[in-house]
Amino acid sequence: MTDDKRSSVLVISAHSGDFVWRAGGALALYAERGHDVRIVCLSYGERGESQGLWKQEGMTLERAKEARRAEAEAAAEALGASITFLDLGDYPLRIDDAGLDRIVAEMRAAQPEALLTHVASDPYNRDHNAAHEATLLARQVAQAAGHDRTTTPIGAPQVLQFEPHQPEQCGFVPNLLLDITPVFDRKRKAMECMGAQSHLVQYYTDLGLRRGVQAVRNGGAKSIVQAEAYQRLFPIVGDELR
Amino acid sequence: MTDDKRSSVLVISAHSGDFVWRAGGALALYAERGHDVRIVCLSYGERGESQGLWKQEGMTLERAKEARRAEAEAAAEALGASITFLDLGDYPLRIDDAGLDRIVAEMRAAQPEALLTHVASDPYNRDHNAAHEATLLARQVAQAAGHDRTTTPIGAPQVLQFEPHQPEQCGFVPNLLLDITPVFDRKRKAMECMGAQSHLVQYYTDLGLRRGVQAVRNGGAKSIVQAEAYQRLFPIVGDELR
Amino acid sequence: MTDDKRSSVLVISAHSGDFVWRAGGALALYAERGHDVRIVCLSYGERGESQGLWKQEGMTLERAKEARRAEAEAAAEALGASITFLDLGDYPLRIDDAGLDRIVAEMRAAQPEALLTHVASDPYNRDHNAAHEATLLARQVAQAAGHDRTTTPIGAPQVLQFEPHQPEQCGFVPNLLLDITPVFDRKRKAMECMGAQSHLVQYYTDLGLRRGVQAVRNGGAKSIVQAEAYQRLFPIVGDELR
Amino acid sequence: MTDDKRSSVLVISAHSGDFVWRAGGALALYAERGHDVRIVCLSYGERGESQGLWKQEGMTLERAKEARRAEAEAAAEALGASITFLDLGDYPLRIDDAGLDRIVAEMRAAQPEALLTHVASDPYNRDHNAAHEATLLARQVAQAAGHDRTTTPIGAPQVLQFEPHQPEQCGFVPNLLLDITPVFDRKRKAMECMGAQSHLVQYYTDLGLRRGVQAVRNGGAKSIVQAEAYQRLFPIVGDELR
Amino acid sequence: MTDDKRSSVLVISAHSGDFVWRAGGALALYAERGHDVRIVCLSYGERGESQGLWKQEGMTLERAKEARRAEAEAAAEALGASITFLDLGDYPLRIDDAGLDRIVAEMRAAQPEALLTHVASDPYNRDHNAAHEATLLARQVAQAAGHDRTTTPIGAPQVLQFEPHQPEQCGFVPNLLLDITPVFDRKRKAMECMGAQSHLVQYYTDLGLRRGVQAVRNGGAKSIVQAEAYQRLFPIVGDELR
Amino acid sequence: MTDDKRSSVLVISAHSGDFVWRAGGALALYAERGHDVRIVCLSYGERGESQGLWKQEGMTLERAKEARRAEAEAAAEALGASITFLDLGDYPLRIDDAGLDRIVAEMRAAQPEALLTHVASDPYNRDHNAAHEATLLARQVAQAAGHDRTTTPIGAPQVLQFEPHQPEQCGFVPNLLLDITPVFDRKRKAMECMGAQSHLVQYYTDLGLRRGVQAVRNGGAKSIVQAEAYQRLFPIVGDELR
Repeated sequence: MTDDKRSSVLVISAHSGDFVWRAGGALALYAERGHDVRIVCLSYGERGESQGLWKQEGMTLERAKEARRAEAEAAAEALGASITFLDLGDYPLRIDDAGLDRIVAEMRAAQPEALLTHVASDPYNRDHNAAHEATLLARQVAQAAGHDRTTTPIGAPQVLQFEPHQPEQCGFVPNLLLDITPVFDRKRKAMECMGAQSHLVQYYTDLGLRRGVQAVRNGGAKSIVQAEAYQRLFPIVGDELR
Repeated sequence: MTDDKRSSVLVISAHSGDFVWRAGGALALYAERGHDVRIVCLSYGERGESQGLWKQEGMTLERAKEARRAEAEAAAEALGASITFLDLGDYPLRIDDAGLDRIVAEMRAAQPEALLTHVASDPYNRDHNAAHEATLLARQVAQAAGHDRTTTPIGAPQVLQFEPHQPEQCGFVPNLLLDITPVFDRKRKAMECMGAQSHLVQYYTDLGLRRGVQAVRNGGAKSIVQAEAYQRLFPIVGDELR
Repeated sequence: MTDDKRSSVLVISAHSGDFVWRAGGALALYAERGHDVRIVCLSYGERGESQGLWKQEGMTLERAKEARRAEAEAAAEALGASITFLDLGDYPLRIDDAGLDRIVAEMRAAQPEALLTHVASDPYNRDHNAAHEATLLARQVAQAAGHDRTTTPIGAPQVLQFEPHQPEQCGFVPNLLLDITPVFDRKRKAMECMGAQSHLVQYYTDLGLRRGVQAVRNGGAKSIVQAEAYQRLFPIVGDELR
Repeated sequence: MTDDKRSSVLVISAHSGDFVWRAGGALALYAERGHDVRIVCLSYGERGESQGLWKQEGMTLERAKEARRAEAEAAAEALGASITFLDLGDYPLRIDDAGLDRIVAEMRAAQPEALLTHVASDPYNRDHNAAHEATLLARQVAQAAGHDRTTTPIGAPQVLQFEPHQPEQCGFVPNLLLDITPVFDRKRKAMECMGAQSHLVQYYTDLGLRRGVQAVRNGGAKSIVQAEAYQRLFPIVGDELR
Repeated sequence: MTDDKRSSVLVISAHSGDFVWRAGGALALYAERGHDVRIVCLSYGERGESQGLWKQEGMTLERAKEARRAEAEAAAEALGASITFLDLGDYPLRIDDAGLDRIVAEMRAAQPEALLTHVASDPYNRDHNAAHEATLLARQVAQAAGHDRTTTPIGAPQVLQFEPHQPEQCGFVPNLLLDITPVFDRKRKAMECMGAQSHLVQYYTDLGLRRGVQAVRNGGAKSIVQAEAYQRLFPIVGDELR
Repeated sequence: MTDDKRSSVLVISAHSGDFVWRAGGALALYAERGHDVRIVCLSYGERGESQGLWKQEGMTLERAKEARRAEAEAAAEALGASITFLDLGDYPLRIDDAGLDRIVAEMRAAQPEALLTHVASDPYNRDHNAAHEATLLARQVAQAAGHDRTTTPIGAPQVLQFEPHQPEQCGFVPNLLLDITPVFDRKRKAMECMGAQSHLVQYYTDLGLRRGVQAVRNGGAKSIVQAEAYQRLFPIVGDELR
């Protein structure tokens, strides 16, 4: 991917918090370089990822969605990204053909060079699987010449899976350690917007340090402090032996 | 890997022909860019990969080695690479501690940014496994502060496995499709030096086209015609989502 | 899991016979110890697992279901377990959102410490896959604070996959060999209730002996005769090195 | 499988072109031997696999389907096979219960000894996954004594997965290299019927040569020139050590 | 493999009992059909697989070897096979270059169409791994034109791994269920020769029944009673879809 | 494993530091409960894991070994364990038959109920592989009735692999999260003894917290703060569904 201003990065996030913890550094990095960075939240995580909210008296689904939406918008802004909510419901997240078409439309609008999403199989959270599957299926449909003749088919963007909570249980094997040291402040700020899950800020700061140590061990610059781990799905095409 | 002139690429080849068919394009590419490209042949393939020679009357191990050496030197020259022969024997290739120390010495002398070698498990040819294992073991020893205090430990070079003859039977899953279009003429010239295995030139030209088609399908430039497939072993460390 | 009387075990069985052959020993063991043992049959196996019944003249789906239900109730009683039938249909078993909600409700009612179900991928019988997937998805939904505020979310019960008919073809790797010797008589009695599949009693008795021999070989007590094999999905949390 | 005239081969093809490129040799081979060879196309590939057609002015879905149908019928005829189109739609291909019942009916009508279809997981094309899953599910339903009492249940046909475009990325490991040398002319003729994808004829001719070389290397007759690769799903039952 | 009288089958057995329990049916089947069936025992299993013998007073390694040899010779005779003992030692079995050369010589003498041996990785018994590795390495060396010019290189025989004691723990996935019903009496007779391990006769009779049931389930003839499971290593080359 | 005072735990550690970082909590836990806890260091890690020492002027292999030995003895004492050094050399660690016999002797002397060691395949450090392989091989030999008639064969102890530095790159999938909260102070004290690798104390404290969070998420008590991850190799035999 060149630093061409027109190239974009698109995240498909099952719930409205996932993009912050798992890919916030990547988003800030690309936003800062002038790329068009877009987030699609398939759901708000209103039922399954809002424990704090549900402890409040009188909580309703609508109020939970609103609170989650406000947090996610603040986080996206802190990262320099735009954000869209498809409100398809969570626990379970079910993506029908209409939902798929909306994801396809987002892909065609973005013409992304990279798609970020969840792993294929998370035994703890099948919404993650659904988001992964929808990303691959929408990518395929978005490439089809015969789908929606009013918008432009996409090329063949890389798909990068971000790190799940318990990586080894999800078959996650990082093949990219992304140096996010220069933008970690912005990621931290975005994480701090997520009031419903505030206990996770320290956890993901520590995880970033751990991935940073591994980055240096794998030949990265000694200056790397914070990193995010990704597993890309497709081969890299290029002219460098790395 | 930057285009810094001092960086080098080192191939650990089980037999004297492997580097030509499987990595010739990569070597030519880096040589042309001014990198220091080095080949270490663990054996000549004198017993198991010289069928043509053994049809000649009066063939001996020594004569087979000489013929194979001459071919490999010519091929290396065509690619712009230097070459060393450790003559450890083939079918089976056995690497003892003295042999290992020589590989370590080559690594320390080269200070490579990338190591190229065989896959971990080839059911047809266990010499390939031995070369793979020796590469990982030598890499580890070459990093050790307490090994041979007269030479300089290496960093953490990437290890790229090149394509075996029957990739699916060897668990080979390419994660790099290297565009070798600009240097394919040099690879072809190098392949034509390998008189003992001349039937393979067309085969590997076709394979390069096949990998080239796949490179385009995976988002590579439409101009790619010839590619080589690699499976890197370690995560990439970097600041790009690719 | 402590022997606390309130803890329960819940089986999610694709067809009405599966729980007998594959988990009957476990159920009898826990029932005998005073645990609350519950079986949920997603279907009766009326179309695909009632060959004997369909040889009878005038058989209908309803009569097949009744016969299967009677057998399964007798088997459950022999094991000391309660049983519920969701009647979602078999061959294929399809679990929609209403079906899922009923499974969630069963989980919340049971508050199980262990869930038993099928493997993730059985090439011979995709109903088994559907039951596995529904179990993981229902477990996740049953944990959600925002789902059905009138019932209590569950904790994080272990999921144990029981042995499929052809284990190696299903990726089944046992990591628990459960000693069912003390209750094997009850399992045998339950198996004998399954008139539609009577040829299987000897088969599963022999399988139990085979797993018993393996249990002893893996360090179990010499007194073990009959065992059942399970593959748990999640890490054990504990303070013992076993 | 004996050469009994009554035995049949049934292909379940996601799009109307797949059976030609990936299994044309097998179909011609069996047709020539007098077997009943049947093709079921789940869709025409009208949206996603008709790029050439969509470059024509005024193209519509119906016209694309017609063009694809005509090509596929010509190809089937060249191979000596009969063909049926289920027109379930592509990109995405969705198979509901009615669609499944039609596949089951085709299986029962054919009483096949071998089923040919796509791999389980193709990251580039989820329609292939859908066809694979539908084949396994339909096979199971077609075996059920209680399904559609007016037709005859099938036995336990082998399922052979044909080669995807990028085999290593799809987990494809060939365990059958089928010698199609005697019928390659017919496969070539069938490939030439596929006007919408004419660039692929040379590509699949080269692939056939490559698989042919591998066939000889794996102990096949020296006379083998063209081969197709398959991955069967179930164990072979037989009395030969091969 | 044709029924040509000159074709042969060669077993590489880590200990002197393995070939009986795991491949006795295959050997009897081929011997009865007139094939040349040969067994190479790398060790007698004198230290690790002779528990019964070591309970006898005054037992020595030499006496244990003699007893094991006598049993194995009787079993081989019952199966109609010839047998050779390399006496390389067990627990651990170590195969040096001289040992390897002897295995290569056996392969060249036999010119086998099929090689039978252990799985690649048995966590309980690393001698099995050593036998597997030696088989692959010897196969490769036996193919080399430049190895021992006085004997004839072999072709590319299939390698079939026989069933380990705990198949799932060894990554064993059967892809051949061999019908041994017609010769089971001979296998039973051979098993009864193995005095040191007499408790295993019933165990392996039951296992044969289990594999027989599975053979029928996978489409085999209803007449199959006893079967042995194998996992072949290389693709089959042929002209049948099975 | 019962709390029987006579049962023991044995660690096979490639280098003299591994047991501290990776299994210190388990050792302290068992020592505190009165078990006999033993450590066998195959090498001192004198060449490859003593970077700090080699920065000191005049360092020699012997002095490095002494320094490492002193640290390891202090750490073992802090944990309440006994320690033995086999001094087999590191980078590479090579275990010949004499070395193997010494490990066997340690196993027979300890009669352990659990063996702790490294993973099977660490691409960064093949000494870890060597230790794993030696553990399995020594376990098998230690079980053999015919090996060293003067000592007593062992039973079938579980093998638990401890966590490597980069778990996902080593195929490490934890299936035991061991609560070490009650003894973490002792582990920390032991870690602080390792002067040559002092930068790792914080790193492994953070890792313990991370595993602790996961332990709670997998159903562990809320009181768990520090945990260690293990991957056991063999099935558990027992009478509990966990």
